Amino acid sequence: MTQPVNRVVLAYSGGLDTSVILKWLRETYQCEVVTFTADLGQGEELEPARAKAELMGVKPEHIFIDDLREEFVRDYVFPMMRANATYEGLYLLGTSIARPLIAKRQIEIARQVGADAVSHGATGKGNDQVRFELGYYALQPDIKVIAPWREWDLTSRTRLIEYAEAHQIPVPKDKRGESPFSTDANLLHTSSEGKVLEDPWQEVPDYVYSRTVNPEDAPDRPDYITIDFERGDGVALNGEALSPAVLLARLNDLGRAHGIGRLDLVENRFVGMKSRGMYETPGGTIYHAAHRGIEQITLDRGAAHLKDELAVRYAELVYNGFWFSPEREMLQAAIDHSQARVNGTVRLKLYKGLASVVGRKSPDTLYSEKVVTFEDDAGAYDQRDAAGFIKLNALRLRLLGRRDGR
Amino acid sequence: MTQPVNRVVLAYSGGLDTSVILKWLRETYQCEVVTFTADLGQGEELEPARAKAELMGVKPEHIFIDDLREEFVRDYVFPMMRANATYEGLYLLGTSIARPLIAKRQIEIARQVGADAVSHGATGKGNDQVRFELGYYALQPDIKVIAPWREWDLTSRTRLIEYAEAHQIPVPKDKRGESPFSTDANLLHTSSEGKVLEDPWQEVPDYVYSRTVNPEDAPDRPDYITIDFERGDGVALNGEALSPAVLLARLNDLGRAHGIGRLDLVENRFVGMKSRGMYETPGGTIYHAAHRGIEQITLDRGAAHLKDELAVRYAELVYNGFWFSPEREMLQAAIDHSQARVNGTVRLKLYKGLASVVGRKSPDTLYSEKVVTFEDDAGAYDQRDAAGFIKLNALRLRLLGRRDGR
Amino acid sequence: MTQPVNRVVLAYSGGLDTSVILKWLRETYQCEVVTFTADLGQGEELEPARAKAELMGVKPEHIFIDDLREEFVRDYVFPMMRANATYEGLYLLGTSIARPLIAKRQIEIARQVGADAVSHGATGKGNDQVRFELGYYALQPDIKVIAPWREWDLTSRTRLIEYAEAHQIPVPKDKRGESPFSTDANLLHTSSEGKVLEDPWQEVPDYVYSRTVNPEDAPDRPDYITIDFERGDGVALNGEALSPAVLLARLNDLGRAHGIGRLDLVENRFVGMKSRGMYETPGGTIYHAAHRGIEQITLDRGAAHLKDELAVRYAELVYNGFWFSPEREMLQAAIDHSQARVNGTVRLKLYKGLASVVGRKSPDTLYSEKVVTFEDDAGAYDQRDAAGFIKLNALRLRLLGRRDGR
Amino acid sequence: MTQPVNRVVLAYSGGLDTSVILKWLRETYQCEVVTFTADLGQGEELEPARAKAELMGVKPEHIFIDDLREEFVRDYVFPMMRANATYEGLYLLGTSIARPLIAKRQIEIARQVGADAVSHGATGKGNDQVRFELGYYALQPDIKVIAPWREWDLTSRTRLIEYAEAHQIPVPKDKRGESPFSTDANLLHTSSEGKVLEDPWQEVPDYVYSRTVNPEDAPDRPDYITIDFERGDGVALNGEALSPAVLLARLNDLGRAHGIGRLDLVENRFVGMKSRGMYETPGGTIYHAAHRGIEQITLDRGAAHLKDELAVRYAELVYNGFWFSPEREMLQAAIDHSQARVNGTVRLKLYKGLASVVGRKSPDTLYSEKVVTFEDDAGAYDQRDAAGFIKLNALRLRLLGRRDGR
Repeated sequence: MTQPVNRVVLAYSGGLDTSVILKWLRETYQCEVVTFTADLGQGEELEPARAKAELMGVKPEHIFIDDLREEFVRDYVFPMMRANATYEGLYLLGTSIARPLIAKRQIEIARQVGADAVSHGATGKGNDQVRFELGYYALQPDIKVIAPWREWDLTSRTRLIEYAEAHQIPVPKDKRGESPFSTDANLLHTSSEGKVLEDPWQEVPDYVYSRTVNPEDAPDRPDYITIDFERGDGVALNGEALSPAVLLARLNDLGRAHGIGRLDLVENRFVGMKSRGMYETPGGTIYHAAHRGIEQITLDRGAAHLKDELAVRYAELVYNGFWFSPEREMLQAAIDHSQARVNGTVRLKLYKGLASVVGRKSPDTLYSEKVVTFEDDAGAYDQRDAAGFIKLNALRLRLLGRRDGR
Repeated sequence: MTQPVNRVVLAYSGGLDTSVILKWLRETYQCEVVTFTADLGQGEELEPARAKAELMGVKPEHIFIDDLREEFVRDYVFPMMRANATYEGLYLLGTSIARPLIAKRQIEIARQVGADAVSHGATGKGNDQVRFELGYYALQPDIKVIAPWREWDLTSRTRLIEYAEAHQIPVPKDKRGESPFSTDANLLHTSSEGKVLEDPWQEVPDYVYSRTVNPEDAPDRPDYITIDFERGDGVALNGEALSPAVLLARLNDLGRAHGIGRLDLVENRFVGMKSRGMYETPGGTIYHAAHRGIEQITLDRGAAHLKDELAVRYAELVYNGFWFSPEREMLQAAIDHSQARVNGTVRLKLYKGLASVVGRKSPDTLYSEKVVTFEDDAGAYDQRDAAGFIKLNALRLRLLGRRDGR
Repeated sequence: MTQPVNRVVLAYSGGLDTSVILKWLRETYQCEVVTFTADLGQGEELEPARAKAELMGVKPEHIFIDDLREEFVRDYVFPMMRANATYEGLYLLGTSIARPLIAKRQIEIARQVGADAVSHGATGKGNDQVRFELGYYALQPDIKVIAPWREWDLTSRTRLIEYAEAHQIPVPKDKRGESPFSTDANLLHTSSEGKVLEDPWQEVPDYVYSRTVNPEDAPDRPDYITIDFERGDGVALNGEALSPAVLLARLNDLGRAHGIGRLDLVENRFVGMKSRGMYETPGGTIYHAAHRGIEQITLDRGAAHLKDELAVRYAELVYNGFWFSPEREMLQAAIDHSQARVNGTVRLKLYKGLASVVGRKSPDTLYSEKVVTFEDDAGAYDQRDAAGFIKLNALRLRLLGRRDGR
Repeated sequence: MTQPVNRVVLAYSGGLDTSVILKWLRETYQCEVVTFTADLGQGEELEPARAKAELMGVKPEHIFIDDLREEFVRDYVFPMMRANATYEGLYLLGTSIARPLIAKRQIEIARQVGADAVSHGATGKGNDQVRFELGYYALQPDIKVIAPWREWDLTSRTRLIEYAEAHQIPVPKDKRGESPFSTDANLLHTSSEGKVLEDPWQEVPDYVYSRTVNPEDAPDRPDYITIDFERGDGVALNGEALSPAVLLARLNDLGRAHGIGRLDLVENRFVGMKSRGMYETPGGTIYHAAHRGIEQITLDRGAAHLKDELAVRYAELVYNGFWFSPEREMLQAAIDHSQARVNGTVRLKLYKGLASVVGRKSPDTLYSEKVVTFEDDAGAYDQRDAAGFIKLNALRLRLLGRRDGR
C-alpha cells in the first residue's frame, strides 16, 4: 500500500469519484497523476473531463483522451460476438468486454509517459477490478496497481464528499445524495446495479432504464431490417456499408426504439457472490440474433456444435477478466477459423422487445433445398442409407440392452 | 425388407398416412397389426383413431390408446428442462423429447401382446426415424423395425392416395392435395416444416402458426404470473398447485394469448442436412425462462457453470435420439444432483412475445444482500481479500507476460 | 491475524514444524490447542505424536488420533479412481485427495470440542493450504482459519529452530540442517518437492525415492496378478477378497517391488506458479491401469467417452481443492452412474516399472466376439449397414466440400 | 452397387487381397483400374507392388507409387502429437492418422487421371472404411466409392483364394492358410487384431509383436536421449537436427531396442462394437512423453488445461475419421496457437518399456525457481496474497455451507 510510486496513469472519467481518486493518489503516494479518458460510446462528452483534469492541475501533456469506439467494436465486441458468447445463458458481456481495452490503453500510455503505476476506480467487491488488473499484469507484469477503493478509508459516500470538499473538488448537486443505483455504459450496453436493484424479487423500476424505451411504449408496427455479414462480422445495415462502431450505433438506435435488449439478471460474480443487475444491450441483442441467424445456413454442424460448447467457456473467461490469456486466444483462434465463410444477409423483425430472425441467405449457404425437400429429390439423398446409419448408431445400445435388459 | 414378421405394433395416429401404413404392413408382411395411439397433448381426439382402427379390422384387444400426458411432462419434459437444454442455442426440443416415450410404450405393448416388430410413420430424411429406432433398439435389442417410408414405393402423394383408394381407406378431402407444410404437435410444442418453409429467406407465413397468436395481435397489457419450483420442477402457477401436465397446459394458454414461443430456425439434422423449421413452444418458453430464473438465486456458480457446459451436450443427445443412452443418463444424474435446492418462486411478465423474469425469491436463496451491498456490509466481505485473489490469479499471466513481452 | 481465538484444532504430525506451530498458536492467540493426528497410511507410528502432544501440555481429551485408512481409500481414493482422474495427464493426485478428509475430520473434532478455529502446517506457496481451507470453509463457513506459515515471521529454518529451542521443543538432529527436499505421504503415494528437485533439468536423485525400488533393481521376472472389481471398485487381489485399504496396501507392496509408479513432473499449481515434483504411487498406478482395463469391456462407448471428458475437469477440481463443491459432486454422480456394471477381473503383468493390462473378463462384458470376429458372424452384423452409416456421416462434409472445393 | 464406373483409383498394397480387388473391380465394373501404393514407413519394398500391378495389366502411367513419409509425419503425426491426443486414454492413433493422407492422395490422383471412383481394401466392420470414405467425400463430394468387402460375395478366405486362382493371381504360400491375426503398419505404429487376439482375457502371444523387443529381452542398462522441440515439433535427437520422418524413424529404433510402446487394448469402434487390438508405437510413445515434458515448462496453465480438454475430443475425431472436418481444424487452430513458444529440450530415460522424462529446459521456460523456491524468494511472491485468494475462492462455498449445513 505504501509502495513508492512515481507516476500513475489513472482511468479517469471526470466524475466525482475519479476526481477524488486523482487527489487521493497525489496525496497518498506523492506521485504525479496522468489521466486517461476513453470514448467507448458511453454517450458523454469527453472535453469536460479534460477541463476538469486541467483544473486539478494535471499537465496538458498528461491528459489523454481517446476515441476508442471503432477499436472497441472491431477488436473486442465483434470477436466476442463471433463466439455467440453469453454469460450464464443470458448476459451479453457488455461491461466485461470493455475493460481489457481500457487496461491495454492505460498500459500503452504508462509506457509512453514512463509511468510505473496504473489506477482505476472499481470497487473491491466487483468483477471490474479483476478485469482491469488481470489486463494490466498480463500486458506489463511489473506494473504497480493502485485500487483506491480497496485501500482508502473513504468507505461511505459521506466521507467521500467530505474529502472532496476538503480538497476543493466540486461536488455536483445530484451526487450529494446516494445514487439509487450505479451504472456503466459503453457502445454495447448500459448496466445498472446496487441499491434499488438489490432485492431480486422486486421488479426493476422503469426509471432505471436509459437506453431503451419500455416495450409497451414501442411502436405498434414492426420494423424489418437486414444485416450483411462478411467472415462472421457485420458490414452493412439495410444494404448500407458501415464501419463496426457505426453499425452498432445504428442498431442501438433501432433497439432503443423497439425496446429491445433489456435483461434482469442475478449473476455469479468471479469474486464469489451473487449480484443482481439490469442490462440494456439494444444493438448487441439484435446483432447477436443476426449472427446466429447467418451461422445457421453457413456453418457446418460439426463447427456449430463445437462452437456452442466452446462459447460457454469463452464467455466465462471474458466475464472473469481473462481476455489477455492464452486460453481465450486459443478459443478465439478456433472460433475465427470457423467464420471464414460466414457471409450473407439476415433479415430481422424488430417489434416490442423482440428481435426475430425471419430470413437468411448467403452465397455460401450449406442449406440445400434439393437435399432436404419432402418432394422428390432426384436422388440427392438415398433414404435407405438411413437404415444403416441407424443400425450402426444403435449397435452399442443393442449390446447394452442385451446385457442390462431394461 | 422381407424379413418374416408375425405381429407388429404400429405408432398409429388414425390419419391417412398411418392408415395406409397399417394396410401396407399387412399386405407386405402378411402380419397382424397392433395399433398404438398416444395422447401427448397434441390436441386431437383419440377415439376416432380407435374407430378407424376397428374399421380397418384391428382386433379391439389390439388397439391401444393411452393418455401419456402426465408421464410425458413429468418424466421427459421436466428432466430436460432441469438441464436448460436448447439445441443449437434456440430450439427447445419439443419433438425430440416425445419420441423416446412413444418408443418405450410401443416396446411395452410389443412385449404385452407378443409382437416381434414395431413400425412408425417417420420419413427417411428426418430425425424422428432415428429417435424412434434408437429407442426401440435400446429397450428391445432384438426387435424388428419396419420403417415403411424407407421401404415402400409410395414415393409421391399421388401414389399414396391411389394406394389408399385401391384399399378402401377413406381419404379426407383436405388430404387430396399437397399439404403446404407438415406438422408435429404435443403438449410442449408444435413444429412445422417443409414446402412453404423450404426457402429460409422467406418469412414464415402467418397461417403456419397454430399455437400462438401473432405478438402484434396479443393484448396491449402485460400479464404477471408466478411459478413455484420444488427440486427444479414447476409445481404451482400463481400459487395454485398443479400437476406437471396441467401446469404446462396452463402455461400454454398464457403463452398462446401473449404470442410467446415462436421460433424460425434453420437447424442441423442428425442425418446430415440442414432443414428449416418453425416451432411454437408457448408454455415451454415461459417455463424455460422461469427455471433459469429460479436457478439464478439457488444454484451455486460452480454447479451453474458446469450445467451450462453439460447442457450443450445434453441437448445434442436428446436431439439425436440418444435419450436411452448411458451418457444421457449420466448427464441427467449430474444435473438432477444440482437441483436438490432449486426451490422458490419466479415472477414473470408476459407481453407480446416476451416472457421476462422480473423477480425471484427462495427459502434456499444463495443471494446475499448483506454480502453484495454497496452499502457498509458490516464485515461480511473484506475488500482486501480481492487484492490477493487478483494477484494469484494474475501470477501465471505475469510470468507469461515477462516471457512473451506484449 | 489478531482475531480472537478460543480453541483451535491443529492438524498435528508430531514433527518439529507442527510442534512449533502448536507452541506459536498458544503464544500468539492465547488459545487452547487441540491436536489431531491421522493415520492415512503414511507409514509412521502415531503414538509418538500422542506422547509429544502430552509432553507439550495438550490435555489428553484434546489429543485426537484416528486411523482413517479405510475411510480414506473407500470414500476418497476409490471414487476418484472411478473417474480415472489424472492431473495434467499424469499425476494421480495422491496429495490432493487426502486433504479434504483431514479437513473434514478437523471440522468434526472442532464441533465436538467446541473449537472456534482450525490450523494447518501448509506453506503459503502451495496447493495444500487451499485444499485444507476450502474444505474447512465449505463444511463450517464461520470457522476461523489460522495458517501460521502465512502469518508468522519464522521465515527461515534457522529462525524456526531458534524458536523451538527457545521454547523447549526438542529438535531432532536430522532436522537441524536443511532437508534436501520435502515430502508428503499417505497410503496412495509419497510426493517430494523442493531443494534438490528445483532444477527441472536435473534428474531426480535416486535417494529421493522411498516407496519404490529403482526399476533397474526390480526382479528380472514379471509377476502376474488379478484384481476383481465390483461396481467400479477393487474388491479382491488374486481372488482374495480385501477391504479397500488392505487392497491398496498390497498393491503398494507389489508396486514397490517392481519399481512401479514413479513420476517426475513439472506441474501448474492452483496458486499460479509451476513446481517440480516427484511422485511415487506404486499401488495406485497398478489400480488405475486395472480400472481402465475393466472399463474397456464393461463400459459403453458413450459412457466411456463422456467420462474421459469429465475426468479432465474432475481432476482439476480435486487438485485445486474443490472436493466439497457442488460441481465435483455433480461429476461424481455422473461417474458413479456409469459404474453400476463395472464388474469383472483384470489380469496385469508387473515388470520393472510397467503395470500392463494383459487380460480382462467380466460377466457384464459388452465385448462380443460374435459381432467383431473376422470370421463369419452368422448375421450378427450386416456390413452393408456401414455404407449407409458412412454416407449419412459424410453428407455434411460433402455439402461442405461442394461449397469450399478443396 | 452397379453404378457405372469408368476409372477407379485403388489403394493398392501389392498383396493378395488388393490384387483380388483389382481384378474384381475390372470384372464387376468393367472399368480401368489405377493403382496407388504409398510408402508411409510400413517397412515394405514398394517396387514389387509396381511389378505386380504391371503383371496384372495396369498401364505404367496408371501405377502411382509415392514416398509420403515426410508428409505423413510433418502434416499428420506431428500436428496430432501437438494435441497430446490419445483415444480412450491410451491409444496413440497410429492407424487412424494415416488414413486421411491416403485418401487425400487417392483423390489427387483421381483428379490427375480423370477417375470417377476410388476404392480401398478395408472391411465392412472396421473403422478404416469410415476414415477412407469420409476423407474421399470431404475432398471430392461427388466421387464414387467402391468398398469391395461390403459388396462382394468373397466372404471367406477359401473363396478369396479360389477367386485368385481362377483369375491367375499368384497366391503366396503363407497366405493359403488363415493368418492368425491381421496387421497394419506405418512409420508411427503397427497394429494387430483378430483371430488369436479375439479373446480379451488371453494375453497377446509374443509372436504377434514385430516392432519392439520384449521388455524382458531389452538391455539391462538404460539409454538417455534428448529431443529438441521448436514450436511444438521435434527437430533434433541428441542435438542432431533431423527431418520429421527421420526423427521418428530414429526414435522407432530406440523404442524397438528398449521394448517401448506396446499396448494391449479393448477399444470402442466408431461402427459400434468393441474390438481388441495390440499396438506397437515405439517412437511415438517416446515422442508423446517428450512433448508433454516440454509443454510442462513452456505452456501456461490455462493453455495446458484447455488443451487437455480439447484433446479428448480431438482424439475422438481423428479416430472416427473426421480429419478433414471443420471441427478438427478448429481444434487444430486452437492447439497450434498454444505451441508458439513450445521450444526447448527434453531428456528421457529409456529402459525396458519405460520412456521417462527426467529433465526439461527451455529458453522459453515459464518455470521460475525464484518464485517457487522454499527458500527466501526475495519478495517474488507474497504469501499473504494466498489468504485473499482462498477467501474469495471459498466465498461461494461458505454461502452454500450456510444454506446446506453439512
